[in-house]
Amino acid sequence: MFQQTQITVFNKILIANRGEIALRVIRTCKEMGIKTVAVYSTADKDSLHVRFADEAVCIGAPPSKESYLNIPRIIAAAEITNADAIHPGYGFLSENAEFSRICEEYGIKFIGASPDMINRMGDKATAKATMKEAGVPTIPGSEGLLESIEEGIKIATEMGYPVILKATAGGGGRGMRIVREESEFKKAWDDARQESGAAFGNDGLYLEKFVEEPRHIEIQIVGDSRGKACHLSERDCSIQRRHQKLVEETPSPFMTDELREAMGAAAIKGAEAIGYEGAGTIEFLVDKHRNFFFMEMNTRIQVEHPITEEVTDFDLIKEQIKVAAGEPISGKNYFPKLYAMECRINAEDPANGFRPSPGKIHNLHMPGGRGVRVDSHVYAGYVIPPNYDSMIAKLIVSGQSREEVIVRMKRALEEFVIDGVKTTIPFHIALLEDPEFKAGNFTTKFLETFDFSVIKK
Amino acid sequence: MFQQTQITVFNKILIANRGEIALRVIRTCKEMGIKTVAVYSTADKDSLHVRFADEAVCIGAPPSKESYLNIPRIIAAAEITNADAIHPGYGFLSENAEFSRICEEYGIKFIGASPDMINRMGDKATAKATMKEAGVPTIPGSEGLLESIEEGIKIATEMGYPVILKATAGGGGRGMRIVREESEFKKAWDDARQESGAAFGNDGLYLEKFVEEPRHIEIQIVGDSRGKACHLSERDCSIQRRHQKLVEETPSPFMTDELREAMGAAAIKGAEAIGYEGAGTIEFLVDKHRNFFFMEMNTRIQVEHPITEEVTDFDLIKEQIKVAAGEPISGKNYFPKLYAMECRINAEDPANGFRPSPGKIHNLHMPGGRGVRVDSHVYAGYVIPPNYDSMIAKLIVSGQSREEVIVRMKRALEEFVIDGVKTTIPFHIALLEDPEFKAGNFTTKFLETFDFSVIKK
Repeated sequence: MFQQTQITVFNKILIANRGEIALRVIRTCKEMGIKTVAVYSTADKDSLHVRFADEAVCIGAPPSKESYLNIPRIIAAAEITNADAIHPGYGFLSENAEFSRICEEYGIKFIGASPDMINRMGDKATAKATMKEAGVPTIPGSEGLLESIEEGIKIATEMGYPVILKATAGGGGRGMRIVREESEFKKAWDDARQESGAAFGNDGLYLEKFVEEPRHIEIQIVGDSRGKACHLSERDCSIQRRHQKLVEETPSPFMTDELREAMGAAAIKGAEAIGYEGAGTIEFLVDKHRNFFFMEMNTRIQVEHPITEEVTDFDLIKEQIKVAAGEPISGKNYFPKLYAMECRINAEDPANGFRPSPGKIHNLHMPGGRGVRVDSHVYAGYVIPPNYDSMIAKLIVSGQSREEVIVRMKRALEEFVIDGVKTTIPFHIALLEDPEFKAGNFTTKFLETFDFSVIKK
Repeated sequence: MFQQTQITVFNKILIANRGEIALRVIRTCKEMGIKTVAVYSTADKDSLHVRFADEAVCIGAPPSKESYLNIPRIIAAAEITNADAIHPGYGFLSENAEFSRICEEYGIKFIGASPDMINRMGDKATAKATMKEAGVPTIPGSEGLLESIEEGIKIATEMGYPVILKATAGGGGRGMRIVREESEFKKAWDDARQESGAAFGNDGLYLEKFVEEPRHIEIQIVGDSRGKACHLSERDCSIQRRHQKLVEETPSPFMTDELREAMGAAAIKGAEAIGYEGAGTIEFLVDKHRNFFFMEMNTRIQVEHPITEEVTDFDLIKEQIKVAAGEPISGKNYFPKLYAMECRINAEDPANGFRPSPGKIHNLHMPGGRGVRVDSHVYAGYVIPPNYDSMIAKLIVSGQSREEVIVRMKRALEEFVIDGVKTTIPFHIALLEDPEFKAGNFTTKFLETFDFSVIKK
């Protein structure tokens, strides 16, 4: 995307995150000749991100508000170590406008979106209105927040059921209700408001046409400080359990050249309309007729970014750093030259409702060989703390065809040895053996009817 | 190279090898849906190739002639397990014509060269004469074996010193002597004969013009049973210590498009002239004027094959199996789309003359992330036996430029943790920091003047 130049704008980057993404960012910084500072909670003192960073600062104990979400402590760590930029990873403070603003105030470059951008894209109703105005297709629904239940019923009646109520501050499926007919509206309204109020301290709701047979397909974009954006094609993230992505792939088996062109153009239009700077993802729902609708924009690096790296040969963290350092992008778009898939390996028991399974990893063998990449912060002897999300590795496989990727992924999963805790590996193996999955026939509802009893214990 | 078809000709392949290459072959067989049989010596009972194969047969104890070189036991293991093909890996029986012939006799497909092909390419003097006849440039020298010291001196005088005496059965630098003037000839002749007689039971010598500032650049070829061959470009293997390759890369920093075209065409000409079937490598010496000379042909997979896989996207083991199953190749040649480098991680102490360092691996962390591939059979708790060669891992890195590959390799090496034994990792780090290496200025003599004292202990 850029020329192969050495960036010297940043001398030292603090990574305000933990786990695999902290290590991921450290790896790229090392390759760019940039010093790194890890921050860590007491629960993470034996984590590899602490070991491999040039410096490490303990910023407190769990829970996260005392450490990874504690802005004053992170800023203090950056000041003490003279870091001139902060990479927030994903989750935690990566989409926190206040944090982005404070970094700016302290003269520390936030490698992510500006406070204004985060505010505009963080509130889902505002984001949708912004994108609609920019000409990006959006799901028909309320223009912003619903003022009352009556307004909601009126709009639903106009556009026809089924509709879906969503919390404006929501995420991870919380504060959402599908309404199939008017008689269900009141209960759904009350439930969604209560749930979102409890979860996010904000009970604002909006309403959308419910898309049937939806696929979750997102477009990776990179925008520069000159207001130019390009796309790096799509990722299909339809394989989700309770709105949590488990498997992602690119190209999408549902994609056509025409659809990619249209979605890519829409994503660039949206990004350029807001002058987006940095790496971002525009998530779309695609219906069975290949109509696509803007869902949300993530103003940060995604968990699943490596599959895009595998098929385009870019290092997206490097691109983030270059953009943050003020380099212009080429203006070209990038298309998949290969096929890639990611399985999220979580310390959870898939045969028992994906119950978390923290604890000590006794023996460990990570798969290797042709077309296999592992992004992980764990090792034999590592104790997975119970305090954080349960992802312990991302297994990323690439190949010359989707078929090759599937057999290679299965081979790699079967070779992955993690003794001491339960993991999602048996789930992934079962999924890869499913004829419909193998044929690429799946929507975001796929796992709702998946037979989890076939998972080998 | 081929269409993405499922090969069903082989139901079960026995891998007559150990270590990383045995695991490497098992991985591809799994991806192709082919069952695998591992054979192992008692020293290797805890090796991963034994764990990951579908079946495993113990074929004896060290030394290798009682196990990995014991043809009757390997054939018996194949018969007992009903294997219909044998993959020999590299080393051991991979270029043993007798073994290839016996496999044929027993109706077991040998995934490698025919007995005739091995014989023709295994004897270096015969190989050279064959290639010369096919029109492949060869180093001027004796036509085949020298009958007497007098004949050697006569030829050397005609073509001018320096010359090099080489054992016809030689390898790994044994039985070789450079002769810079006639007065040195007798001693060199006697020494080379004695050394090769002792090492190979064959004291036949031949003579060549000594190439100054030579680079070792080899061309990967694949030939099919229809007599067609294609090439997959070059690997630069000039970084050698006592004729043992330590680092390989592709494309060669010394390569030009014209030279690649010429070397590729010569390699194909050589392979097609002998009707070569399978994956093979034609090794050339390239002088400073970019003249190239045939050195030898390896009728097997090479240790360094993964760098070619990384830049062309092929799985060379899969290609070997497909060719052995009778599939035709496409006839196209393949060029590097990326840059790749391999560092051989040996359990040796580079600060003490690369003395072998077998023993138990206590802690292990293998590098991961973008552009990093590890091919290895070891794990935390594994005991490296003293009986075999000391390579414990191949670290393969790819990227968009040679510069990117070098910084990524350094990052990966610095992240590689192997506690309990000494390894060549510190040597590789020192090499990657050498300005001449970084500039791509090196010949096969590079390590003769390398300052090994800079290696960090």
